[in-house]
Amino acid sequence: MNFDTPIDRRGQKQTKWDRMEELFGVSPADGLAMWTADSDYPTAPCVRDALFKAAEHGVFGYSWLHDDYLNAVAWWMHNRHGWDIDTDWILTAQGLGNAIALSIDAWSDPGDSVVIFSPVYLEFSVKIKKAGRVVNECPLKRAGDTYVLDLEDAQSRLTGREKLLIWCSPQNPSGRIWTAEELRQVADFARKNNLILVSDEVHHDLVYAGEKFIPMAVAAPEAQDISVYLTAASKTFNIAGQRTGNMIIPDPELRQAIKSRLHVLDYMPAGLSVAMITAAYSPEGAAWVDAQMAHLKKNRDIFDSGISKIPGVYAMPLQSTYLAWVDFSGTGMTYEEIENRIKKTAKIAPSPGPSFGAGGETFMRFNLATQTDKVTEAVTRLQYAFRDLQ
Amino acid sequence: MNFDTPIDRRGQKQTKWDRMEELFGVSPADGLAMWTADSDYPTAPCVRDALFKAAEHGVFGYSWLHDDYLNAVAWWMHNRHGWDIDTDWILTAQGLGNAIALSIDAWSDPGDSVVIFSPVYLEFSVKIKKAGRVVNECPLKRAGDTYVLDLEDAQSRLTGREKLLIWCSPQNPSGRIWTAEELRQVADFARKNNLILVSDEVHHDLVYAGEKFIPMAVAAPEAQDISVYLTAASKTFNIAGQRTGNMIIPDPELRQAIKSRLHVLDYMPAGLSVAMITAAYSPEGAAWVDAQMAHLKKNRDIFDSGISKIPGVYAMPLQSTYLAWVDFSGTGMTYEEIENRIKKTAKIAPSPGPSFGAGGETFMRFNLATQTDKVTEAVTRLQYAFRDLQ
Ligand SMILES: Cc1ncc(COP(=O)(O)O)c(C=O)c1O
Ligand SMILES: Cc1ncc(COP(=O)(O)O)c(C=O)c1O
Repeated sequence: MNFDTPIDRRGQKQTKWDRMEELFGVSPADGLAMWTADSDYPTAPCVRDALFKAAEHGVFGYSWLHDDYLNAVAWWMHNRHGWDIDTDWILTAQGLGNAIALSIDAWSDPGDSVVIFSPVYLEFSVKIKKAGRVVNECPLKRAGDTYVLDLEDAQSRLTGREKLLIWCSPQNPSGRIWTAEELRQVADFARKNNLILVSDEVHHDLVYAGEKFIPMAVAAPEAQDISVYLTAASKTFNIAGQRTGNMIIPDPELRQAIKSRLHVLDYMPAGLSVAMITAAYSPEGAAWVDAQMAHLKKNRDIFDSGISKIPGVYAMPLQSTYLAWVDFSGTGMTYEEIENRIKKTAKIAPSPGPSFGAGGETFMRFNLATQTDKVTEAVTRLQYAFRDLQ
Repeated sequence: MNFDTPIDRRGQKQTKWDRMEELFGVSPADGLAMWTADSDYPTAPCVRDALFKAAEHGVFGYSWLHDDYLNAVAWWMHNRHGWDIDTDWILTAQGLGNAIALSIDAWSDPGDSVVIFSPVYLEFSVKIKKAGRVVNECPLKRAGDTYVLDLEDAQSRLTGREKLLIWCSPQNPSGRIWTAEELRQVADFARKNNLILVSDEVHHDLVYAGEKFIPMAVAAPEAQDISVYLTAASKTFNIAGQRTGNMIIPDPELRQAIKSRLHVLDYMPAGLSVAMITAAYSPEGAAWVDAQMAHLKKNRDIFDSGISKIPGVYAMPLQSTYLAWVDFSGTGMTYEEIENRIKKTAKIAPSPGPSFGAGGETFMRFNLATQTDKVTEAVTRLQYAFRDLQ
């Protein structure tokens, strides 16, 4: 469990490093990939062992969503999140992007609106738009060093065409963990406005010591009949490339809507993905996640303290996720100038803030799930790139 | 490359053995699983090596359909099938079942008809029906020891609601390899009736010495503008559980119809599946397939000669595939009686013929992709189960 072991991801045909130059103009030769949300260190030994064992056996015939998988998911939710689920609530999709797309298809029609609270994970609006639906972007309110809900404002923005609310908890990009009270307010808002509530909780395991994540289902169990909970081992265990996520749907009618779509599409997760997740959701996997969080805390603290030394640059304190949300507005620079200094001078490729919607205009999101020396190096480069502000 | 090395597939959470009892009432303790189309021996060493290497590296972040994959597919089609394709014709789906489902969705509406030639791979009609379309089942004609087309008969069955023709080549369950002339006739039939031609060629690599498979695209290149070619490494390399197949679509407009569906669904193949197929479609993979075919020829010959000793039981001579299509009509027994003797006395679970549609009523399909001693054992058991016919 050494997250600092040097590893070269270049040439592995994975997007974060091998497509960085094409997408951001930052060369992997001397650049730092701090954009898309996967990690630079290997997954848990128990997950790799599952793969070694499968390769050893060598037969990759048809498989199915078997009880070992379902029980492992239920075990994880109970043990790590105090959330008791029935195994027959669990469906899988081709990653949570696909789960979101299926939800949009199931519960809205082209031309309908979908509510999101911005700034938020850029793909929410991408998926809504590519399905021919309309994004109703309700801004989160900046309050001190975090975001809070403004449901009164959100209410005033509804047009009557809204069918779905896609909620992000913990929040990407701010790392905000919502309180039980806030979650209940969101559930009430969905109920009052006849919205299906899709609660994307993919980052739920990546919680720093001292913080406590509460699943929407635990905070607002009375909203089960309008809710779809999305979880995955993809971020937690760095297996996003395996494209498998869970749709946990207690309500039989809502569940059937997705089930029948998966059935018509003839969807079935890849056997190795199922085996890897089954292995991940175990006591060994849990211990590895704890160790990972200690590593990420070290990275977060180094990053935050380094960034705080640059006048006008501000990193929101992360309660969860390895995604640092950094505001450059205090520099007084244009977005182009900020981007230029980060990409050209510091040779870092973060995720551009404006893509997260309203509120992200002056931000950049930095992925800290890497070896600590890369975080230290990033801080040094950023301090240098903005040294004239000192 | 020893296909006879004993291997225990039980308890591996793969369908063929571990769900046999539940689905067929044949216990894996002493039964023989000869139904669903995957193999009982390990995949090629080059494919397993790709997996070992990935497990060694240990990072499973986001990937994409990279050039190494696309070039490997193109290389395979050129070298193994004399078929030159552009890499940008290649899309991938979640297995060919999903590819068929996407095709039905793209080119027909609920209530429309889809033409198939039966007996044929049972899932064609399953997918057509679950999409709310109508199956127009045109029978193949039995001629000597194989099936031939009867396009005049097929023409007379069309209702005007047909939008798609799903074609199976080589043919599952008969193993028939269609001639270039037959393929051209099918393409002409599709053109004349305004049908999109979906040519499912998943078994194209499993061809016995002395036989030659011809891709639809090579036999009828003029039909490219109405054709979708389906191929996969899944049967060839025994990686069906990895749920990844190719949709090769030369026509830009047809390709866009599938591309936009995959885009809206946010579909992306699992990184390990892509790595495994890239490794498979190589000179090492090709040599392994040749060795596999020698093994399958041995199995086929043992099976056919054993079956020919049972009066009234007849195995169609296989030109391709490891799926023996066996007619029990000469026994004069009812289907229940045949089934009982095979499942209860012989303790074998084949695929039931009636599920393949009209023409399959008195058949069973036996999967021969296993260790030779299992084939010998199956023959002994079948001879014993029908010993009163001697
Ligand atoms: C909130 C959120 N949802 C979904 C995803 C993507 O999930 P997947 O890779 O399973 O499509 C991400 C990835 O960054 C995310 O941050
Ligand atoms: C003709 C044919 N098409 C498609 C398939 C299934 O393909 P996949 O496993 O990729 O869904 C099979 C499997 O037996 C088959 O025989």
